[in-house]
Amino acid sequence: MISKVRIKFLNSLHLKKFRHEHKAFLVEGNKTVAELLSSGYYVQSLYATASWLQANRELTGNKKIEIFEATAEELKACSTHTQPDEVIAVASIPASGAIPALEKGSLYLALDSINDPGNLGSIIRIADWFGIQHILCSEDCVDAYNPKTVSAAKGSLFRTGITYTNLQQVFAKTALPVYGALLEGENVYKQDLGAKGILLIGNEANGISQALLPYITHPVSIPSFGGAESLNAAMATAILCSEFMRPAAIQP
Amino acid sequence: MISKVRIKFLNSLHLKKFRHEHKAFLVEGNKTVAELLSSGYYVQSLYATASWLQANRELTGNKKIEIFEATAEELKACSTHTQPDEVIAVASIPASGAIPALEKGSLYLALDSINDPGNLGSIIRIADWFGIQHILCSEDCVDAYNPKTVSAAKGSLFRTGITYTNLQQVFAKTALPVYGALLEGENVYKQDLGAKGILLIGNEANGISQALLPYITHPVSIPSFGGAESLNAAMATAILCSEFMRPAAIQP
Repeated sequence: MISKVRIKFLNSLHLKKFRHEHKAFLVEGNKTVAELLSSGYYVQSLYATASWLQANRELTGNKKIEIFEATAEELKACSTHTQPDEVIAVASIPASGAIPALEKGSLYLALDSINDPGNLGSIIRIADWFGIQHILCSEDCVDAYNPKTVSAAKGSLFRTGITYTNLQQVFAKTALPVYGALLEGENVYKQDLGAKGILLIGNEANGISQALLPYITHPVSIPSFGGAESLNAAMATAILCSEFMRPAAIQP
Repeated sequence: MISKVRIKFLNSLHLKKFRHEHKAFLVEGNKTVAELLSSGYYVQSLYATASWLQANRELTGNKKIEIFEATAEELKACSTHTQPDEVIAVASIPASGAIPALEKGSLYLALDSINDPGNLGSIIRIADWFGIQHILCSEDCVDAYNPKTVSAAKGSLFRTGITYTNLQQVFAKTALPVYGALLEGENVYKQDLGAKGILLIGNEANGISQALLPYITHPVSIPSFGGAESLNAAMATAILCSEFMRPAAIQP
């Protein structure tokens, strides 16, 4: 059973304010909870149906997690999903550490004011697919622990470092190339991207902010063949990451 | 003013059943309605605030559209958006014509059981960006006139042909290569994609259905560098379309 106080607590984590007050966030659904439990993230508590608990003993066995058996109805009362899942976990938001040392020859993502939680989740999943270890988010990016972001990232959140920071300060200090995704940059297919560096993606509606434009060493664009005015930020990220990584996937 | 009967009618179009009964769908928001009005789609009626109507006379001027001035509150009562827009239009669903002749040297998309309306909208936007004229959807794909699809497609819906059809029958008849996006295909970066053909994308959770696998002439995969188990269907479509089109964007 989940007590009323706990249901209230779980619901409070739907909101950023309370997530950061409690330094905790929700992880919903079988697959993502399974990935959470095999990650380095600290899991505080877990709420699941009797059948889930029985089937997943090996996942929860050796960990100090407060475990609560719950009915489908109770889980529904705490969930953000319209089709509620058999399991919900509460994990700790990791302490925001220092920005990692940005290494030559590696690819990093920098996100400027990404607003949509689903887009941020998709971008995290893309980063993980292409082996990008770290994402730098401007301070006004949407919260990476938003339930919609967690769901869209599908476990990739637990494998990708994310730091909220002042991008201007990062760019001012780095010697790495900064590739800016712009509508009027150079044809990305013709660039030598071998040195990698930082790929900067702008806000969904307004693109990269004025203040960051001077730090772009390589403005790049994805050539258009049709009538669409722009690409969704996550789609552009997917295509650009693919371009950065393809040379490594072609080499024998 | 929007009458109660009309508010009921607009709300009925949130559901597939009534969209297909009335052969009509909703288009919401300034930008997408502007693209609708400059497209070949037949617009039946339009509901907008006084200020929108005043500012957009040139868009509606020469067309036979029933126009209704509406309050923000009335628009909210008809909208599927949480932040309602200044304008909503009702457009006619075009008659589902015959499948176009599939031409050698062109790229087409075939979608097998795409479930998520947002994914379908993103895929339509991608197709339009890369100049793909036509998308073939299996009969169990989500409805392209779902309000979430229309919003995610951002006007690209009006520039892209979409046919719901039996993909098996199409593949059985075509001489074009069929590229299937699979987790265990050939490294797409190493393929010669110059002949183009049909790119087949599978369902979000289950991939390409068993019945369609025998028709794939070229199984392709996007190499993975990290821990993510899979890519979102729309992201994979974006990367694969980019691969098909990059040779054309590199040639002088």
